[in-house]
Amino acid sequence: MHVVSARERLLTAALDLFAEHGVSGTSLQMIADRLGVTKAAVYHQFQSKDDIVLAVIDPALNRLGPIADEAEAQRGNAARREQVLAGVVDLVVGFRKVSATLSFDPVVMRLVRAHPALRNLQRIRRLLGGTAPDPGSRVRMAVIAGGLMMAGADPAVTGLDDEDFRDHLLAAGRRILKG
Amino acid sequence: MHVVSARERLLTAALDLFAEHGVSGTSLQMIADRLGVTKAAVYHQFQSKDDIVLAVIDPALNRLGPIADEAEAQRGNAARREQVLAGVVDLVVGFRKVSATLSFDPVVMRLVRAHPALRNLQRIRRLLGGTAPDPGSRVRMAVIAGGLMMAGADPAVTGLDDEDFRDHLLAAGRRILKG
Repeated sequence: MHVVSARERLLTAALDLFAEHGVSGTSLQMIADRLGVTKAAVYHQFQSKDDIVLAVIDPALNRLGPIADEAEAQRGNAARREQVLAGVVDLVVGFRKVSATLSFDPVVMRLVRAHPALRNLQRIRRLLGGTAPDPGSRVRMAVIAGGLMMAGADPAVTGLDDEDFRDHLLAAGRRILKG
Repeated sequence: MHVVSARERLLTAALDLFAEHGVSGTSLQMIADRLGVTKAAVYHQFQSKDDIVLAVIDPALNRLGPIADEAEAQRGNAARREQVLAGVVDLVVGFRKVSATLSFDPVVMRLVRAHPALRNLQRIRRLLGGTAPDPGSRVRMAVIAGGLMMAGADPAVTGLDDEDFRDHLLAAGRRILKG
């Protein structure tokens, strides 16, 4: 049985409020009110709103390194590319709710840009596009990077279940990448 | 002979400063200093910084309607889709510098979201994805929308000339869209 911790309840309430008011428009007091606890109880879990946002986005950003590791362990560029595509697609599907809520939020973007795990994006891009890509590969790289990054937040996919979303996202990625 | 107007000089200086400091970090005084004119001279051209940003993004957003019009004038879904793809690709290529500078800027996003021409994005999405798209088409729609939107701002394509960028972007779009 999964017992929902106070921390998880807080993050769920915060994400709901971020979706309604944006991160900047959400205060720790609003999160406390939503949970029916005191602001001190919120502070007991998180020192600041940035810490709450980081607790939401860290699990996604911290997947980037292992995704690159697993792909680099494959033999051959085609297998590496397929592995890294599958890893990124799983990440997009797994964090589609977070992505739809927090994409484009200026507070989130500031924290993402400063996040140490972001360096792994360069590894992932090399795995997808090669180390010395020709112009066509560079453009395909830009399209797939933007397409995967934005897909989870796109209203067109809201009604799809995770399995359909994953299968079709993989298929779209393979269409773009195939040489 | 193309005479560069005071207005064009001002917009060029503003865009350079936006690239260096972000829109929020750029004041009308900084724009005046860059041009060697008084702040009053800047006010003579534009009432506010929002007006300057709108003068930069309006030409791009105001292309969305004509792009949809031209595509809707074609016969058959395939021809419409090809026409709208070509129109959006031209737009991305034509505004790649603006896109690389202003994408993700919170001031810009606020103005884009409130812009009346944005309603034409729905027409463009219908032209690309159809009126009652299946799950696969919806995912491809999300990928191509995000991919095209982000491609102009991607560092991977910075070194490409416009013609190469356009050709490869069209090719990538066709790969995703072909049924």
